[in-house]
Amino acid sequence: MSLVVVGSVAYDGVETPQGKVDRMLGGAATYIGLSASYFAPVKIVAVVGDDFAQEDVDLLASRRVDLEGLERVQGGKTFFWAGVYSNDMNDRTTLRTDLNVFADFQPKLPESYRKSPYLFLGNIQPDLQRHVRSQMNGVKYTGGDTMNYWINDFRPALLQTLKQWDFLLINDGEARLLSGDRNLRRAAEKIMGMGPSTLVIKRGEYGAILFHGREHFIAPGYLLEEVFDPTGAGDSFAGGFMGYLAGEGVQPNDGISDMALLRRAVVYGSVMGSFCCEKFGVDRFRTLTRDEIEARYREFEDATGF
Amino acid sequence: MSLVVVGSVAYDGVETPQGKVDRMLGGAATYIGLSASYFAPVKIVAVVGDDFAQEDVDLLASRRVDLEGLERVQGGKTFFWAGVYSNDMNDRTTLRTDLNVFADFQPKLPESYRKSPYLFLGNIQPDLQRHVRSQMNGVKYTGGDTMNYWINDFRPALLQTLKQWDFLLINDGEARLLSGDRNLRRAAEKIMGMGPSTLVIKRGEYGAILFHGREHFIAPGYLLEEVFDPTGAGDSFAGGFMGYLAGEGVQPNDGISDMALLRRAVVYGSVMGSFCCEKFGVDRFRTLTRDEIEARYREFEDATGF
Repeated sequence: MSLVVVGSVAYDGVETPQGKVDRMLGGAATYIGLSASYFAPVKIVAVVGDDFAQEDVDLLASRRVDLEGLERVQGGKTFFWAGVYSNDMNDRTTLRTDLNVFADFQPKLPESYRKSPYLFLGNIQPDLQRHVRSQMNGVKYTGGDTMNYWINDFRPALLQTLKQWDFLLINDGEARLLSGDRNLRRAAEKIMGMGPSTLVIKRGEYGAILFHGREHFIAPGYLLEEVFDPTGAGDSFAGGFMGYLAGEGVQPNDGISDMALLRRAVVYGSVMGSFCCEKFGVDRFRTLTRDEIEARYREFEDATGF
Repeated sequence: MSLVVVGSVAYDGVETPQGKVDRMLGGAATYIGLSASYFAPVKIVAVVGDDFAQEDVDLLASRRVDLEGLERVQGGKTFFWAGVYSNDMNDRTTLRTDLNVFADFQPKLPESYRKSPYLFLGNIQPDLQRHVRSQMNGVKYTGGDTMNYWINDFRPALLQTLKQWDFLLINDGEARLLSGDRNLRRAAEKIMGMGPSTLVIKRGEYGAILFHGREHFIAPGYLLEEVFDPTGAGDSFAGGFMGYLAGEGVQPNDGISDMALLRRAVVYGSVMGSFCCEKFGVDRFRTLTRDEIEARYREFEDATGF
């Protein structure tokens, strides 16, 4: 049950209280893809420049991520972002955003991707998100991410896009902005009225809340001994969530309404987000094993049961 | 199994985005006592002025809170605090603090209180906290609260006090200040090295974390439809936690090491904190029933199980 992931593949420069890296592999599709690859076959749609390094291709390939949809623009440069985190790592300041080839990103779906049942649309322009989905003739379960810029300045397009989605995965600030309601419970009701039958609200170190129908599930964040770099944690969460759903082999018809399955997917999301923070950038995924993931899942059970 | 609660009984002026009340019953011992009264018999030690209203005495009496230890200073005025909450209610600004009779508070333990096995020491000067405990000749389980002022300016006294405590219940900022460590997991280890075998770190709307031995338990905050006034929520949490432990009739010898019991106590704490926010000041406790408490406890189970 393969999963198509559309979004950015980038280079990041990151400074946290634990250290500084001038340039390393990053981008939402990278984190989502690496994280999801532990659960299901992943196919990436993204664009990079000809500065994209072979070692980074190799890392993705080592996790069996399909790169047929990774477009390379000759003479172009890969998206570059740099930022610095606050002392408590709950805030970050962007130092530089060079969109480069990502500015004109027109996702191109290889023929071999079109029958995948699962589609995760990363944070890109909502019309592009809709266009990708329209080309996926076998898609059964679609969802994704967005951000303040699209919510504020592309609202009609975003609302059209959300109508077709089975789930939306955003952070608490975005949920408040999209719904116009500060209270997350009421915000969730309003957002589910826009289309997605499932909503996951990420709350950073505090975990995430899943809303589905009239039920909700609150997953705390894992208590790490040390946070090295939170970059990509939210995307790793998304990868764990969607990867688990895809990997379970459920054939979704009218969305997924198995609340127990969705709960477990959220916990796997939290697990993957927590691993991501343990090293800089994608480094934790170089050594992470499925056994470690299962062990941490059990730790979550121990830390939340009563 | 009665519980002695030492702390402030006060009047508060509170403004939140939901409204404004110029003067209403408040104070840590009030919230802790009202909340704990649903689980165990409570005896309060506090001081008020002769402006303390009969209707407020009546409210506490209606919850069967023993007021023999409520000292009234003739010609004195009751502690008054006023503050205004930020839009998201996660921050508040103090507008006024008139300590009044609370400035010279010397807790006086009635003879009938001294054999109580459970003692909760609210946020007062650490030497006073220790002095109260020394008079409780039947005490089996002691814990309490503190704040930044005592951590910073009365550290040696506080450390002496903590040595005798079975549990400490503070918020995340206080835990970081007390331990000198930003990471809550490491902070907890350091604080438990100071004496308390159980530590509960409150995280406001995000719930609380219980540490005991090498285990921890993370309880999320309840997702309210509407927060009217967060004043007293942390103290109501404390009352639910300690009240439940006292009410279970456990005869603690060397502390309480039943992790399952402690987990449930934390959930009852979260439940009581959530009810407190539903109305201004102590108003929710005027109508709250034990059945409602049990129903919300079950909602917590539904919202966190996977």
